[in-house]
Amino acid sequence: MITSTANERVKAIRKLRERKYRQESGVFYIEGIRIVREAISRPERVETLLLAPELLAEHLRAEVMQQIESARVAVLEVSAAVFASFGLKENPQGLAAVVRQEWHELSSLDPLHMGLWVGLDSVADPGNLGTIMRTTDAVGGRGILLIDNCTDPYDPSAVRGSMGALFAIELIKTDTASYRRWKEQHTVFTVGTSDAASVNYQSVAYPENMLLLMGSEREGLHPDLVQACDQMVALPMAGRSDSLNLAVATGVTLYEIFNQHLQRGKK
Amino acid sequence: MITSTANERVKAIRKLRERKYRQESGVFYIEGIRIVREAISRPERVETLLLAPELLAEHLRAEVMQQIESARVAVLEVSAAVFASFGLKENPQGLAAVVRQEWHELSSLDPLHMGLWVGLDSVADPGNLGTIMRTTDAVGGRGILLIDNCTDPYDPSAVRGSMGALFAIELIKTDTASYRRWKEQHTVFTVGTSDAASVNYQSVAYPENMLLLMGSEREGLHPDLVQACDQMVALPMAGRSDSLNLAVATGVTLYEIFNQHLQRGKK
Repeated sequence: MITSTANERVKAIRKLRERKYRQESGVFYIEGIRIVREAISRPERVETLLLAPELLAEHLRAEVMQQIESARVAVLEVSAAVFASFGLKENPQGLAAVVRQEWHELSSLDPLHMGLWVGLDSVADPGNLGTIMRTTDAVGGRGILLIDNCTDPYDPSAVRGSMGALFAIELIKTDTASYRRWKEQHTVFTVGTSDAASVNYQSVAYPENMLLLMGSEREGLHPDLVQACDQMVALPMAGRSDSLNLAVATGVTLYEIFNQHLQRGKK
Repeated sequence: MITSTANERVKAIRKLRERKYRQESGVFYIEGIRIVREAISRPERVETLLLAPELLAEHLRAEVMQQIESARVAVLEVSAAVFASFGLKENPQGLAAVVRQEWHELSSLDPLHMGLWVGLDSVADPGNLGTIMRTTDAVGGRGILLIDNCTDPYDPSAVRGSMGALFAIELIKTDTASYRRWKEQHTVFTVGTSDAASVNYQSVAYPENMLLLMGSEREGLHPDLVQACDQMVALPMAGRSDSLNLAVATGVTLYEIFNQHLQRGKK
C-alpha cells in the first residue's frame, strides 16, 4: 500500500488534473463508486484501479471487491491520505481509477449507419461538454465531434457532468477544414442552430443518420461551419433573452430529434 | 476614489461572496458590463455602482458614463487593484454593482393570471439554478418558486448562469408545507417530472397558468411534493442513461410547454 503523497505514481496521478499531462499520457482520472463501476464494465480501458480500503464503505466492500477481481484490472492500494490528495471529491469514497482515453477517427464514421451525432464548435466550458455527453447518450446518440478548440472531454468537470456517459459514446477530434472535406465527400444530413435562422427547429424532419452542429458559448456557430450545414434552425425565444445555455439548447434540439425518431419507430 | 483593499466598504463587498452576508445585507454583487447595464435599467435595485475607470474600455466609456448619469445611481470609484480584489472575473471590465435582492411572497401569486412558473425542490447547484432562470425567462416564464433547501439565486455562479435573467423573473422562497397549504386553497395546474412516471411529457396539454415542479439533482421530487401534483410526467430516455442534468430536463420540459403555448397562440 502506498502511504506517501510524494510517491512518484501518486504525483503523476495528481498531474492528470492538467490537460497537458492528460494529453501526454493518454489517460485520465475518475473518482467515485458509480463511475468507476461503469469503467470496470469496460475493463480494457482501465489502466489502474485505485483503492483506499479505509475509505470504502463497509456495506459496499464485498460487492466492489468481487467486481474488481472478476474484471482482472491492476489495483493499486493507497492510504486514505494519499487518496484524499487526488482531491476531486470532498467526501472521498475510496474508489478511483486511471482510465485510457479513447478517440475515434472521422474516417471511421459511416454516413449510412452513423446514427445521431452532435458536433461542437469550440465548446469552452467542460461542464457544458459533460452535460452534452450525458444528454447525447440519453437520446440514443452515438457520439460527439469536437471541432477546433474544444475543451477536453476528459477534464474532471466534463467527466463529472457526463455521469458516466463518456463510456457510452464515441469521441472524435477534428477541425473545420477536415470536417468540411469529409462532408463534401459524404452525404450526411447536417443541421446547425442559430438564433438568426428563419426555420423553426420543430418544422424539420430529422433522419436517423445525421449530425447536429452547435456553436460555441460565446460566438455561436462559425460561418465556415454554417456553410457546411444542409439546414439551419432556430429555437423560439420570448422575453428579453436572446440566447440559451449551450447545454440546454443542445438538449432541447436533441429531444426534438429523439421524439421524432420515437414517433417514427411507433408507426 | 478608494485605493485600499483593506477599506471597510471594500471588505464588505468581498464578503458578499458568502451566502451568510448576502442574507444579512439583502444585497448581492454583480460584475461585468452586460449584466450591470441590465441592472441599471432597473435603477431602484442598484444600491451602489462600482467603477474602476482605469479598467473600463475606452470605446465604452462615454456610453456607460451617460447611462450611469441618467440612471442617477450612487457611484463608488475604486482603483484597478481594489476592483480586482472583488475577483469574480479574470479580466475585470471595470464595472460592477451592489444590487438589492428582490423576493416576492407566495400569497402575491394570482392563480388566474400567474402565467408559467417553475418550482424547484431543494436545487443544490447554483449553476443549474442560474441556467434554469435563464431558460425560464427565454420561454416567457414569470418566476421561480424555491422550495425548501435551495441554493441561493444570488450566488455568483447562479447570477453568472442566469445571464441577466434574474432581473426579468420573480423569485419566491417557500417550503413544502406552506406550498401545499397554498395549493390546497388555489386551483393551479401543477406538473411534476419523474423518470418513474408513466405519462410522456408531450402527451399533456399545458395551460397558460401553471407550475412545473422539478426535483433536486440527487433525490428527484420529494414524495410530499409529488402528492401535490395534478400530473406526473416523464421524459423518454434511451441508452444506459437513467437521468438528465436538472437544467437540461427543465429546459426540455419548458420548451414543450412553450411550444404548445405558441401553437395555441397561432390558432
